Amino acid sequence: MNEQADAPVILKGKPVADLILENCRQRVRQIVDATGVQPCLATVLTGSDPASQKYVDRKAKLCQDLGMKSIKVTFPETTTTEELVAKTRELAEDPAVHGILLQHPMPGQIDERAAFEAIGPAKDVDGVTFYSFGTMTYGLAGFDSATPGGIMRLIRHYKVPVEGRHAVVIGRSVILGKPMAMLLLDANATVTICHSRTTNLPEVVRQADIVVAAVGKPNFVKGDWIKPGAVILDAGFNPGPKGNVGDVDYDDCLPRSGMITPVPGGVGPMTLAVLMEQTVTGAARQLGVETAREPAAV
Amino acid sequence: MNEQADAPVILKGKPVADLILENCRQRVRQIVDATGVQPCLATVLTGSDPASQKYVDRKAKLCQDLGMKSIKVTFPETTTTEELVAKTRELAEDPAVHGILLQHPMPGQIDERAAFEAIGPAKDVDGVTFYSFGTMTYGLAGFDSATPGGIMRLIRHYKVPVEGRHAVVIGRSVILGKPMAMLLLDANATVTICHSRTTNLPEVVRQADIVVAAVGKPNFVKGDWIKPGAVILDAGFNPGPKGNVGDVDYDDCLPRSGMITPVPGGVGPMTLAVLMEQTVTGAARQLGVETAREPAAV
Repeated sequence: MNEQADAPVILKGKPVADLILENCRQRVRQIVDATGVQPCLATVLTGSDPASQKYVDRKAKLCQDLGMKSIKVTFPETTTTEELVAKTRELAEDPAVHGILLQHPMPGQIDERAAFEAIGPAKDVDGVTFYSFGTMTYGLAGFDSATPGGIMRLIRHYKVPVEGRHAVVIGRSVILGKPMAMLLLDANATVTICHSRTTNLPEVVRQADIVVAAVGKPNFVKGDWIKPGAVILDAGFNPGPKGNVGDVDYDDCLPRSGMITPVPGGVGPMTLAVLMEQTVTGAARQLGVETAREPAAV
Repeated sequence: MNEQADAPVILKGKPVADLILENCRQRVRQIVDATGVQPCLATVLTGSDPASQKYVDRKAKLCQDLGMKSIKVTFPETTTTEELVAKTRELAEDPAVHGILLQHPMPGQIDERAAFEAIGPAKDVDGVTFYSFGTMTYGLAGFDSATPGGIMRLIRHYKVPVEGRHAVVIGRSVILGKPMAMLLLDANATVTICHSRTTNLPEVVRQADIVVAAVGKPNFVKGDWIKPGAVILDAGFNPGPKGNVGDVDYDDCLPRSGMITPVPGGVGPMTLAVLMEQTVTGAARQLGVETAREPAAV
């Protein structure tokens, strides 16, 4: 690829997510044929945030589309950590449940970490436990943090060169920035992690062959921060009046980029696809069925 | 500090480690007074490597010096993962043991990860489990990986400026480079992690305000890689005919550095001090005794 002369490649997530989901569908069929059991994702929603409600419903619908079951547990805004942990443990011990997703953010009084840890490693299909962070970090088989895992699948599908390249991750949250850094490191990138205390952020980003924006500020990354030809991956998710807005000022960055994810339709669909795939994988493991990712499914 | 004009500060570990160990001694006394129980570290040595033998003996001796107990478990070179895991679990369940250290590297047939995970979070005083990596990464109370934890204590004692500075960690091992990066990030540094696949390593290191060498290659880091006034922390540990050699070419780097750790006598003593301190902390928690770090103990 001549990075400077060619038009930027738009890294669309939907077609890649569809490949993954089609493969999930086949594996679900294999599991049902072998065991008579449908893989089942339990979602736990705490409080009444309409956006969270919508995401949980979307996951349930997707389960249905793929031939899977889903269970939806709802707690009021006033739930305690103890109640949430107890229910999560119950789901973790229920053999009919193969994956658990705790929708977050949770209300302020909840100790999110205690709730996440109650999932345990076997059903942590959203990749939020310490154990999953460990397997991601150590390059071992396990469940990826869903969004960073989705970004890695985009990278693989579109053959983004990673080895020996300099990746700059903007943001150090435990569900985005940090696991993203670990996965990029495992793919042999040199990785820099930036955050709100970083001095002269634009100058650091200008060195990046690969930029991952995971900072939670709409249109934060500007075009003149981008080294010509760089790959821009936008994990931003900022609900606005006209829908979600990314962390990257797309119009400003597009002309300088070599490859760039759109928002919506870039990273978003990948997150959901990885969650589903990891639920199927969890079910296959728990039920002792051998199923395989098709090569076509990236 | 005028970084360019002043002579480099030599970051000696011994006096800082001694402060930590003196504080351990007091806390051990408190624990014994309150409960009649001596904090106890169990070390597990697999195989007959003379260096490993020596390290384990040094730890046992230090326990004795501090008024603690130690148990030494030895396995032959031919041990299986199953045997090692079973024994580690037994120690994890033994109320008389408060901390467990599995001396590594272990023989090639051993699944080190399985062995480490058998320690469990409560007694992981060497900070090698996924759980401890999680607490380090998330900035929560827990046990640090001993060497990176020791380096952070050196940094704190010598008031090395970290916030907003660019730290470059050379090496991405799970006991050094990766946890080091997480701890520096938690201290608000911008962190770059380099490794064997990094392109143009000297140029990356030249940007660092803080360099941590954790690569396992003697005298690897050269003077002309160092930005004048940078802080150099050498976690290298390369046994040679004349004793241990660091990863940093000390004589070459010294003139350009603002602060630098010697080898030996820099990071080494800190590792051991943190291991002991974490064992005391583990014992205090398990026995329900409140003990506190003295401010003087960094």
